[in-house]
Amino acid sequence: MPLIDRDPLLLTPGPLTTTLRTKQAMLHDWGSWDAAFNRITGEVCTQLVEIVHGRDTHVCVPLQGSGSFAVEAALGTLVPREGKVLVPNQGAYCARILKILGVIGRAAVELPLAEHEPMDPAAIDAALAADPSITHVAVVHCETGTGILNPLEAIARVVAARGRALLIDAMSSFGAIEIDARRIPFDALVAASGKCLEGVPGMGFVIARREALRASAGNCHSLALDLHDQWTYLERTTQWRFTPPTHVVVALAEALAQYHEEGGQAARGARYAANCRRLVEGLRGLGLRPFLAAEAQAPIIVTFHAPVHPAWHFPTFYQGVRERGFILYPGKLTQVETFRVGCIGALTPFDIDPVVQAIGATLRAMGIPTGACTE
Amino acid sequence: MPLIDRDPLLLTPGPLTTTLRTKQAMLHDWGSWDAAFNRITGEVCTQLVEIVHGRDTHVCVPLQGSGSFAVEAALGTLVPREGKVLVPNQGAYCARILKILGVIGRAAVELPLAEHEPMDPAAIDAALAADPSITHVAVVHCETGTGILNPLEAIARVVAARGRALLIDAMSSFGAIEIDARRIPFDALVAASGKCLEGVPGMGFVIARREALRASAGNCHSLALDLHDQWTYLERTTQWRFTPPTHVVVALAEALAQYHEEGGQAARGARYAANCRRLVEGLRGLGLRPFLAAEAQAPIIVTFHAPVHPAWHFPTFYQGVRERGFILYPGKLTQVETFRVGCIGALTPFDIDPVVQAIGATLRAMGIPTGACTE
Repeated sequence: MPLIDRDPLLLTPGPLTTTLRTKQAMLHDWGSWDAAFNRITGEVCTQLVEIVHGRDTHVCVPLQGSGSFAVEAALGTLVPREGKVLVPNQGAYCARILKILGVIGRAAVELPLAEHEPMDPAAIDAALAADPSITHVAVVHCETGTGILNPLEAIARVVAARGRALLIDAMSSFGAIEIDARRIPFDALVAASGKCLEGVPGMGFVIARREALRASAGNCHSLALDLHDQWTYLERTTQWRFTPPTHVVVALAEALAQYHEEGGQAARGARYAANCRRLVEGLRGLGLRPFLAAEAQAPIIVTFHAPVHPAWHFPTFYQGVRERGFILYPGKLTQVETFRVGCIGALTPFDIDPVVQAIGATLRAMGIPTGACTE
Repeated sequence: MPLIDRDPLLLTPGPLTTTLRTKQAMLHDWGSWDAAFNRITGEVCTQLVEIVHGRDTHVCVPLQGSGSFAVEAALGTLVPREGKVLVPNQGAYCARILKILGVIGRAAVELPLAEHEPMDPAAIDAALAADPSITHVAVVHCETGTGILNPLEAIARVVAARGRALLIDAMSSFGAIEIDARRIPFDALVAASGKCLEGVPGMGFVIARREALRASAGNCHSLALDLHDQWTYLERTTQWRFTPPTHVVVALAEALAQYHEEGGQAARGARYAANCRRLVEGLRGLGLRPFLAAEAQAPIIVTFHAPVHPAWHFPTFYQGVRERGFILYPGKLTQVETFRVGCIGALTPFDIDPVVQAIGATLRAMGIPTGACTE
């Protein structure tokens, strides 16, 4: 097979393949004190709040670092030191929230759940009924560990009805799956630059309910991760407290321009859904089976069962597909051998067929008959 | 004056003007799980340790976020919860260390110092003699608030002789001013991508003494900022724990290649020193006076007294110089009206003369006679 020196396409949950236009925005240097840059920060934040229709109720606080930094910042800033957080645990990113709460010294209650089923709002309701000392619920919207989509609106209704505050890790759904702050009450929603907005990684952000954020002074266990301090400084000066990742911010501004040109959340979500359908159909044609039922699957990243065959070896498979021009992602389940394929980034369904072909060719080269694991 | 749409040059302490070659490294997307990217991370870390000749004793732990995130990470990870930190306080970045220690709940002892004089190692020695419960000393090598250079080797000798551990904020000196781990004992040295290495901002790093880092498990108040956790994960997997700022990392790798081509620390420091001399001479020619004595000045950023004239107004001055193509930096002193001009970034002495001309033209346009504040 002829190999050319082309950048591989990323079929991953982020960092993603971004457009050249987005990357070219990074060919300039910006002063972090300069009004031109601070205007961009302000415009980006305004747009991020608009995506969830939160203008009247919420503000956006950007934060340096990865999305997990912003998750820790949201937990540390918005949960008071004497707070107690219910964490429905359905996979790797739910478990990370529990780990953070342990390290930063906030009381947590784990609600263990099956990883292949969407969260049941009734189970959350029962857990809240059983423990009136729980103040917050922290949920993952789309658990990237499996690719499952949770019924956020129903969960939010249950949490609100019990008078508790909701914190949402929307890392891999924000921008692609509808979240409407006018219908979904939440104190914080966390996402990042390098996911469905198709920016480059290096910046997280928290959409926080203004009144909750205002009341959070002094909560945080960290200076760097203190969203209240970051927010009040930004409000007062238009500047980030500490050096911002300037190139990442301008790339996100450029990515947001393209997001709106494409048609916003509805169009972005439809493109990813089309990618996802084509991927699942194509790999089913090779005999590969998705881990999740179709109705539980978010159009973000798909977990597939590994072929049941003695020649299966993920690193060899990964390398073979990579040599054919595509980067996949390992599975993150502990009980079942899986691999993952992302549907997000600057990809269209036309990019998916070659991925399917590369996966088929790699399996055959490994001596694994395509069709080895039909249902 | 004819204005053209050229990017302004940044005469700031970072983000800096970087080379096009460094920025062009960001025109590719990388998978954070992919061996090709993780090889770059490893090579960057190896080179950063080499710059301080720490191969036998120290390791480099990269961290997402700004330099201040890495400062907090170093304090939180390397100072045990029952530790106590002496902080010689000479300016804004020393004060930030004190603020961090307060937030994260580590005992601190402030040693108040004049901001216009290099730290006196004897004063640090006396403070250590007076309080045997002090476990660590945290110093800023070049205090960017004024631009002063501190006698790091003499300070390190005093700290080592008293059997305490040294933590160094070398944010604005690393790579340009010599620091030799074979002669300067330290537990941690903190710097970032977007300073004298001339990368883009978005990543900090901590050069930590291997044995101190190994002993630091469980110290940290934060998961995101836990350098021990970040290090052990990197050692085990070659990957960052959480999504790395991939584009920032590859830009730093490209910036490091140019750093070595230029001739490493000696050449980088010499270029900045030449920039600094030309700047100070040029602005003295306009009657502007540096805040620091020449022997205290680091060749990184120069604080100048503002002209003593009723028409002086920093925002107008800033805007005038900016319209002429250069971005300056505000002063950070509370008692004296000053402004700052950086000497670092992809700039040579040939770039400095136009800066001097732009400053002179702006002052004259403001009605401030150049020469208004001769010594």
